[in-house]
This record gives sequence, structure tokens and C-alpha cells, in this order.
Amino acid sequence: MKRISVFDTTLRDGEQTPGVSFPINYKIQIAKQLDKLGVDYIEAGFPVASKGEFEAVKTIVNLDLDSKICGLARIVKEDIDSALDSGVDLVHIFISTSKIQIDYTIKKSREEIINDSVEAVEYIKDHGRECMFSAMDATRTEIDYLKEIYKAVEEAGVDIINVPDTVGVATPFRFHNLIKELREHLKVPIDVHCHNDFGLAVANTHAAVLAGADQVQVTVNGIGERAGNASLAEVVMILKSLEGIETNIRTEYLVETSRLVERFTGFRLPPNTPIVGDNAFSHESGIHAHGVIKEASTFEPGVITPEMVGHRRRIVIGKHAGRHQIKKMLEDAGYIVNEEDLTKIFEKVKELGDKGKKVTDLDLFTIAEVVIGELRKEDRAIVVDEITVLTGNKITPTAVINANVFNDSRVKSAIGVGPVDAALKAVRELVGETIKITEFKMDAITGGSDALAEVYVTVEDDSGKSFTARAAGPDIVMASIDAVINAVNYLMIKKRLDSKKKEKSED
Amino acid sequence: MKRISVFDTTLRDGEQTPGVSFPINYKIQIAKQLDKLGVDYIEAGFPVASKGEFEAVKTIVNLDLDSKICGLARIVKEDIDSALDSGVDLVHIFISTSKIQIDYTIKKSREEIINDSVEAVEYIKDHGRECMFSAMDATRTEIDYLKEIYKAVEEAGVDIINVPDTVGVATPFRFHNLIKELREHLKVPIDVHCHNDFGLAVANTHAAVLAGADQVQVTVNGIGERAGNASLAEVVMILKSLEGIETNIRTEYLVETSRLVERFTGFRLPPNTPIVGDNAFSHESGIHAHGVIKEASTFEPGVITPEMVGHRRRIVIGKHAGRHQIKKMLEDAGYIVNEEDLTKIFEKVKELGDKGKKVTDLDLFTIAEVVIGELRKEDRAIVVDEITVLTGNKITPTAVINANVFNDSRVKSAIGVGPVDAALKAVRELVGETIKITEFKMDAITGGSDALAEVYVTVEDDSGKSFTARAAGPDIVMASIDAVINAVNYLMIKKRLDSKKKEKSED
Repeated sequence: MKRISVFDTTLRDGEQTPGVSFPINYKIQIAKQLDKLGVDYIEAGFPVASKGEFEAVKTIVNLDLDSKICGLARIVKEDIDSALDSGVDLVHIFISTSKIQIDYTIKKSREEIINDSVEAVEYIKDHGRECMFSAMDATRTEIDYLKEIYKAVEEAGVDIINVPDTVGVATPFRFHNLIKELREHLKVPIDVHCHNDFGLAVANTHAAVLAGADQVQVTVNGIGERAGNASLAEVVMILKSLEGIETNIRTEYLVETSRLVERFTGFRLPPNTPIVGDNAFSHESGIHAHGVIKEASTFEPGVITPEMVGHRRRIVIGKHAGRHQIKKMLEDAGYIVNEEDLTKIFEKVKELGDKGKKVTDLDLFTIAEVVIGELRKEDRAIVVDEITVLTGNKITPTAVINANVFNDSRVKSAIGVGPVDAALKAVRELVGETIKITEFKMDAITGGSDALAEVYVTVEDDSGKSFTARAAGPDIVMASIDAVINAVNYLMIKKRLDSKKKEKSED
Repeated sequence: MKRISVFDTTLRDGEQTPGVSFPINYKIQIAKQLDKLGVDYIEAGFPVASKGEFEAVKTIVNLDLDSKICGLARIVKEDIDSALDSGVDLVHIFISTSKIQIDYTIKKSREEIINDSVEAVEYIKDHGRECMFSAMDATRTEIDYLKEIYKAVEEAGVDIINVPDTVGVATPFRFHNLIKELREHLKVPIDVHCHNDFGLAVANTHAAVLAGADQVQVTVNGIGERAGNASLAEVVMILKSLEGIETNIRTEYLVETSRLVERFTGFRLPPNTPIVGDNAFSHESGIHAHGVIKEASTFEPGVITPEMVGHRRRIVIGKHAGRHQIKKMLEDAGYIVNEEDLTKIFEKVKELGDKGKKVTDLDLFTIAEVVIGELRKEDRAIVVDEITVLTGNKITPTAVINANVFNDSRVKSAIGVGPVDAALKAVRELVGETIKITEFKMDAITGGSDALAEVYVTVEDDSGKSFTARAAGPDIVMASIDAVINAVNYLMIKKRLDSKKKEKSED
């Protein structure tokens, strides 16, 4: 069975996302990642747009990747020459074909548009390169004219034609019919480019493949102009898992690729993003999580596993948490609880949930230890006495923390690149070398400078165990310190208890 | 023509999103907003889940909204009684019907499942309430059994049946066929509930309506378990704008509703979210923006306007910015530039874009003023000499800034809820009462405590003109101060130039 070709336009349409601009070193990293992922084509840019863009495309061509490289060009000699000069394998030319775009933007007759297109195809083929032709705004173009222009470029020797839903107005049923009609009319491979203005880009792309399209244009995380393009991960996994249609994508790199682009664009994906989002394989509700623990496919699609896309399954505690789920989490962490204790722990978790509090794993373990009677407040490893943090334009950011660490009074200071960094380093100084702060995250702040900052800190001990703690407050520096001290407190108590247990068993 | 009924489950399936838990005051605000938006049903919760949940549902019932209120219940007497006691208009009962779920989670015979379901429907109808029946995991249930159970509850007097794609494996074409088959088999209204595991929830919901479904289950921002549910805004706007099918939704509140839920969940939508995202009607690319300035529908769907959904159109400057676009932005801001100056400004913007810098409106105006020769570095209103910022657990966050403001040496201090807040207040002290800081935003930080913080500050003068400036650095406090001083500098220079121009014209 034929494989569907994947044409990635993250570096072209994706980079046209308002607010996104990739410096050259980001572009190189994205291109290498797309190559590792196995995309067939990388649209590297629009070479004529600027000197920097031309150089970027040329640099990507010179990486000598397995993926073929494409450059965009209007049907204008200067554009096409620029693309040819950049050394791309495929020149992607486009011109408006819908009435509204012709009237407002190009002002050529329909015949001129066809003649110019045919000439451009011949010119590119004469230069020994592949050529793809797009009839811009195809889904709002008169069907007879659309068939005519595609036929003309097919006869001129074009390698692929692209059918773009430029403004995102297609629906799966209508787009299926359009592609089917074009498929019957043409021999040349058909590519589709769908925009997501109504949230249908992925479904339209899927519908096009069922109607006979050979290639799909996608971007990582669906970035692109306005509401963006079809998401690479979603399209590829629908074809693979729901239709049994293969591509050359190595799906186990989907999450890794998504995270890279997330970092480079600064657009964080909400946790409910399909396939690659944090919650894609997470379960909170009691009933569901119970099923998943027994057999994942009861409440997951089944035809897709976290491992297939480089993800992991998470069970999250919440107000809907069932007893089974909490018991499993505690057992996984090494706690043995009887039914009576489990009931108490369970009720406490529900109570926190009803108050609107997110319950982290650390919260659960703290509750469990209180219930089992192993953790008393007096056991806290670090009791902070005094914190002072300083920054300014003529001052090196500095933090001083005076604290009691296992009944040992300590004062430590540290400098950092900013006040938060200095503070976390001072905490590290207090606790010694055995604990690492592996992650620091802060949720975006909107509203005002007095809005609540929410900080998550993950710490890891030398045995590789890690815990995430959260703290919130209007003072970002103090919230960061609270979060890290919460996490460290738990880890250190746990260590001490473990060594006590060990001593006992050795008695 | 019939209107499609909108059943919102933001407060039930939405709240089962791992990491989301709405305290009661949030639930009340969301319910009121959904009522204002015009949803037909609000699924307020799962009353038996906890005492807090029961009270929340009851409180929402007592708000006496126009929207009808629904409560969820398993087919268990305790659940149904809890829902009835909470006072909901509609009890939504559900039971597993697929082989995999029956085998792993309920262990009843198929006959028992039907009998229990019929009994539950009769029990609810005897209590004078509406009843909706869901065959959980319908899309993985044998079609004959599915038809049998729906027929049985229809005969028992159920008001609506719901066809859930519980694990998100439906595709538009298959789901269309399923709903069509059920539509032909049943008389009772059909509701659908689609999950977004493959990014097809919205398309599947749309396909179901085309096949004869009467009601759609949606959530605001598509929140819900795993990859969430069908997004309310997308489903409603597809029906309205692409199919001409009406609902009772007042679409002008879609953006407002989305923002409220965004704030309450803490899940920020990426800018490329359809309909309600920041970029939904934003344009950056030169070619496109040029078309949009002339006639918006050239590069927007046309069948939807920002006003219809309570949004606004934005033109964003970027590396792909065209001359037309930059000229229009400058003219809108009151600058008159000749072609030669425009070329210089244009090149400078491209250069910044190639370096991967986002160009704000303030950057553009600064460039323009430098080119036109009106702004020299010596003109800066505020030249900072010394900044000191202090925080801690026994210290009130304090900032002291020593600066030259229009050649007048000033020192001001201020306190705040945190160091950033104190610093911004000190800047305000320096410049006097005429400038307000209307917005402070910080992008999320991931990676480590030494990662770059990116801050955006919007300031407004007394004439109502506002400007946004950006600054980035590893020290969040200093970056915040830089951003606000950049913005204030620009505003103050602009004021001074304006008054000079006025003086001149009065000469």
C-alpha cells in the first residue's frame, strides 16, 4: 500500500505565525529534528523575503539531510531565481485563483494567470528541479477554473499540485468531494494544505487522504498564520492508528519534536492537546483511572499507546480520584496502607479537591504520612528563619537564608543571574550536594504586577527519586523559595525515615 | 429550520481534566457566563462524587438560570437519588456497553445492563424529571447491541439519548454513518459527546449534526479528560458560518467566555487556537496583511468576522511584514513618511526579524522616529542611574530608583506585594500621575531558574494612548523595570514632541 508523503511547513507557514520568528540556529535545530522524525519534505522558507531568509534556506540545504528541501516563490522571476539560487530540491510556486483574491490582490486576467503559471513550471523544470504548484484559495475558486489551471500545469510537467484551503473554510465532506473530483481529473500527485480557522484542518487533511491525496502539508503543533495549519502529530497518528495508512514518520519522536518547537515559539501547549499534550494519556476521574489501571484500553483509544509517540501515562490525583487509584499510587511509592488509613487519606484528598486545590503527588504522600503517623510537623528538615533577597542594576543578585536544618543552625548566601536564581542556589547551599533542583517552572502571569505567581519546582535526590512541589504568592521570589523548601523538606524526611527503617530491619 | 441544542459539560467532563478543580465561586461564575452565552443545558456536576460536588450542583440549580441544569449519575440508586435530590432538571445516566469496558469494569450480562437501564429511566421519569441515557464507549460497541439498548430506553420514555465517543476513536465519516443508522432506528432526540484524542472531536460533532443529531455536547476551550472534548466555540461557529445551522448561542460572548475559563483553569490557549485565540484574526505575513488591509475576506474566512465572536483584528509586524502594512501602521499612529524613509524603516524591521526578534509597535515607532530624525538617544525622558530592590520573609518588598527624569535628578522608593510590584510602583512615582501601567504580562518560564524571563508592559497616558514594550532577561525584576521604562520613555518623548509641534503651529 502506498505511503502518504509528509510535507512539513513549520519553517515557512509556521514561521509566519504572528509573533514567531526563528533565528537561524533555531531553524537549523528544527530542520535536523524534522529530518530525524522522517518528514519527506521540509519547506525551509521563502528565499526572496529577505537576505536572512535566503541564507537560512541555503544553510538548511547545505545540512545535506535525508528530507528534501523546499523553498516558496510567488510566480515572479525574482522569487523563483532566489529559490533556485538557494539550492532547494523543490520550488513551491503559488498564485491566487479565487475571484476575491484576483480582484483585490493580483489584477491579472485568468488567462494570464494560467500562462504565467505554465511558464514558471517550465522554467523550474528547465533548471532540473522539482516543482509544486499551489492554486491559492483553491477552496473558494470556481471548480472549472481550478481544474483548468491544474491541468495546464500538469501538462507543463509539474511534479505535485497542492490544493490549499487558504482561509480554512473547507469541511471534511466538501473537501473530500473536491479532492475526489480533482483526483479523477488529474494524474499528478495531489498535496493538501489546510488552515485551522474553524478547527477542521486535521479532519480536512484526513478527508483528503481518504479521497486520494498523496501528500499532506502539516506543521509541528499546528502553528501557522491565524489559527494555524494541520498538526503533524494528529494527522500522522489518525492515518496510522485509525486508518492503517503509513507515512515515513518515526512516531516515537513526535513528543520530542513538539517540545522543541514549543520551546522555540514560546507557545506552550495546553495540557489537553491531542497526542502530545501533558494530559493525552493522563487520567484523573475515579471511574476512568480505575479502569485504566486494570487495562489501559478501557479508557484510552487502545489503538495508540504513549510509547508509540514518545509519551508516558500519568495517573493524576484529584477530587474525582477513586480509592483504587490512590491505593495504587501509594503502593507504587512504597507505602503499605490498611483500609482504614486509606479511607482517611481518601477523604482528605476529596476535601482538598472540593476546595479547588490541585493535589500533587507530594501532597498525597504528605497526607499519607500524617495519617500513618510517620510525619509530624516537628520533623521538617528545614525551618526557615530569615530570608533576604537583593537585586538591582549595580548589585549582583544575592540571597541570604538563615535556617535550621535538622536542628543545625545554618546561614548561607548565594549569588545568581536574578533574585530567584540566587534564592534557589542559597537553598541548595543549605542542604548540601545531595539534592538537585532539576526543574523550575512558572506559569504565565497576566493581569498586573500584583497577580499571583504559581511556581513548580522539581527536586531529585542522589538515588534518582524526584518530587514536584508547588507554591503560589504575589511575590515570585518568595513563592519560588517556598516551593523548593517544600520539596526538599519532603525528600529529606523521606531519606531519614528510609534509613531508620533500614536500621530497624537490621536490628 | 430546527436549532441545534447546545449541552455544555465544562463543569463536569471539563472539570475532570487532570489538574483542574473549580472551587464553588468559580463554578457559579462559569454557570452564569454559560447562561449569558445561551447554552441550552449546563451539566453542573456528578452530585454523588462528594459532598462539595453535591452542594455545588444544588447551588447552581438555585441560581434559577434560563439554561436547564443537568447532573450525572451512574446507573446506581445512590447516584440517581443524589442527582434527584440536588434538584437538577435533567438526570444524565450512563453505563458501559462496549465489550472491553463490560469485561474489565462492570461484569454484568448484556441483559442485566439493559434491564437496569430501563429501570433507571422509569425511576427518573416517575420523579418527573428529564432523563438522558448514554451508552458509554458507544463507538466501540457492537452496533446491534447499541440499537437494542437505545430502543429499550426509548420505549421506557427517555427524553434524549447520547452517543459518546468515549475514547476519541471515531472519524467524521464513520461517526456520520453511525449516527445516520441510529437516526433511522430511533425517534428520540440524539445527542453526541466526542473526545479529542486524535484532534477530531469538533469534526465528528459536525458530522453527527449533518447525519441528524439534535444536540451537541461541548466544553469551553475543549477542556475535559485526556485531550478533552469538542470546543464549544468551534462547533457553534462551524454550524453557523459554514453550514447555516443555528443554535441559541449568543456568539458575541464566545471570546469573553473562553477567557473566563482560561483564567479559572490556568490553561492558557496558544495564540493559534481557532475562533478565540489571539491570532485568530491577526496577520503578519506581508502578502496576506496587504490583502487584509484592502479587504479582510481576501485572507480571512469571510463568513466569520472578529465582531461576531467578540474578538478584534490585529496587524502584527514581523520579518514578513510588507511595506504597505508598515506604512498603514505608521499612518494610523499619525506619522507621515516619504517613500525613502519608508524603505529605511522597512529594512530595519526586516533586519530585526531575521535576528529572531519580535517587533512590537513601540519598536516600529522608535525606528520610525530615529529614521525621521526626531528621536535621539539624548532625548530619553528617563535615564536610570541606580536601582535597588529588596525582598524577604521579614522585609516588605521595596524598590529604590535613582534616575534623571528630563534632566531633573529624582530618587523615589515604593513598596509592593512583591519585588516586581514594588519596582513598577517606584517607576510610577518617578514619572508622576499622568501615566498608568495598564497591563503586566510575563511569559511562562520553563527550564530553570536562570531561564530568560520575557515581560510585556502596557502603559497608557492621560489622553488614552497606550503602548506595549517588551524586555527580556534572566532577572525578572530588572526585565520588568526595563520594559516599563522603555514604554514610559517613548510616551513621554511623544508627548513632548506633540507639544513642540503644537507650539510651532501656533508660532
